[in-house]
Amino acid sequence: MAQQDAQNGGSETAASAAVSFLAVKPQLLVEAPKANDAVLFYKAAFGAEEVARSLNPKRKAEHELPLILSAELKIAGSTILVADVVDDSASPAKAGGNGVVLCLETEDVEGAIAKAVSAGAAAEGEVVEGEGACCAGRVGKVKDPYGFVWLIFTPGKKCADVEA
Amino acid sequence: MAQQDAQNGGSETAASAAVSFLAVKPQLLVEAPKANDAVLFYKAAFGAEEVARSLNPKRKAEHELPLILSAELKIAGSTILVADVVDDSASPAKAGGNGVVLCLETEDVEGAIAKAVSAGAAAEGEVVEGEGACCAGRVGKVKDPYGFVWLIFTPGKKCADVEA
Repeated sequence: MAQQDAQNGGSETAASAAVSFLAVKPQLLVEAPKANDAVLFYKAAFGAEEVARSLNPKRKAEHELPLILSAELKIAGSTILVADVVDDSASPAKAGGNGVVLCLETEDVEGAIAKAVSAGAAAEGEVVEGEGACCAGRVGKVKDPYGFVWLIFTPGKKCADVEA
Repeated sequence: MAQQDAQNGGSETAASAAVSFLAVKPQLLVEAPKANDAVLFYKAAFGAEEVARSLNPKRKAEHELPLILSAELKIAGSTILVADVVDDSASPAKAGGNGVVLCLETEDVEGAIAKAVSAGAAAEGEVVEGEGACCAGRVGKVKDPYGFVWLIFTPGKKCADVEA
């Protein structure tokens, strides 16, 4: 298991070892505007409880309901996120080949992206501020060598409380 | 919010309300036999720790390495699962449109599937025993109305300890 040992320890630099993570949450990307329906379904089917919801401040028209940037659900103590995704969206959550992305929380977005890239991931797009897919915040995106998309984010302001 | 109230309470029968869940874990389906490489990558990139691994007892040839039914990784206290998926596999983990499925643990697989179906999900295939994708156990599969696949499972024997 020399290879594993090397991966676990030897290949880390002091700088990259300092990157730490706070949580991983799967985010389900739902074709807008069905995320709210999906949340209702997960409540009915799996007993999910909604603990937070952030809305997209940009509406296309005044009569439209705001889209869900990210709704945070708890099922049996585990967290899943549900988001509306619009085809023309510039959101980093925009589907990267499949409909589930992994949201990885850290206090060092750039450091975490650099570490992932040095391990073989590909950075996608820029780190953006303010319209984080996993609650408003700073967020960047990498695709790992196996095709999975990771949103690496630092939450900004506190998520809006759930609108019961 | 009458619709939400109905979803949260009114539409549940006593039987379906009795179904409870223990955890939700995202499972990343990796083209076999690359799951082991993926595990090494997640260790190097995200500081993942492998806490359990179950192997597929069926090898195609004696010289081949066994495939990973499910490797359980912890990243910052959150769990992700990584599995080898073979194209000709009859495994319920076989991709259902995208490469991430949600593994939902319960002690009542049939009850949970019935509840999900009554809420609008489609059952896929039979409940199978012994070769659970999320550790050996009993597992069934539903696809929800938004296209996401949920493996609803009860773990069987304890997962094999990680082979360090």
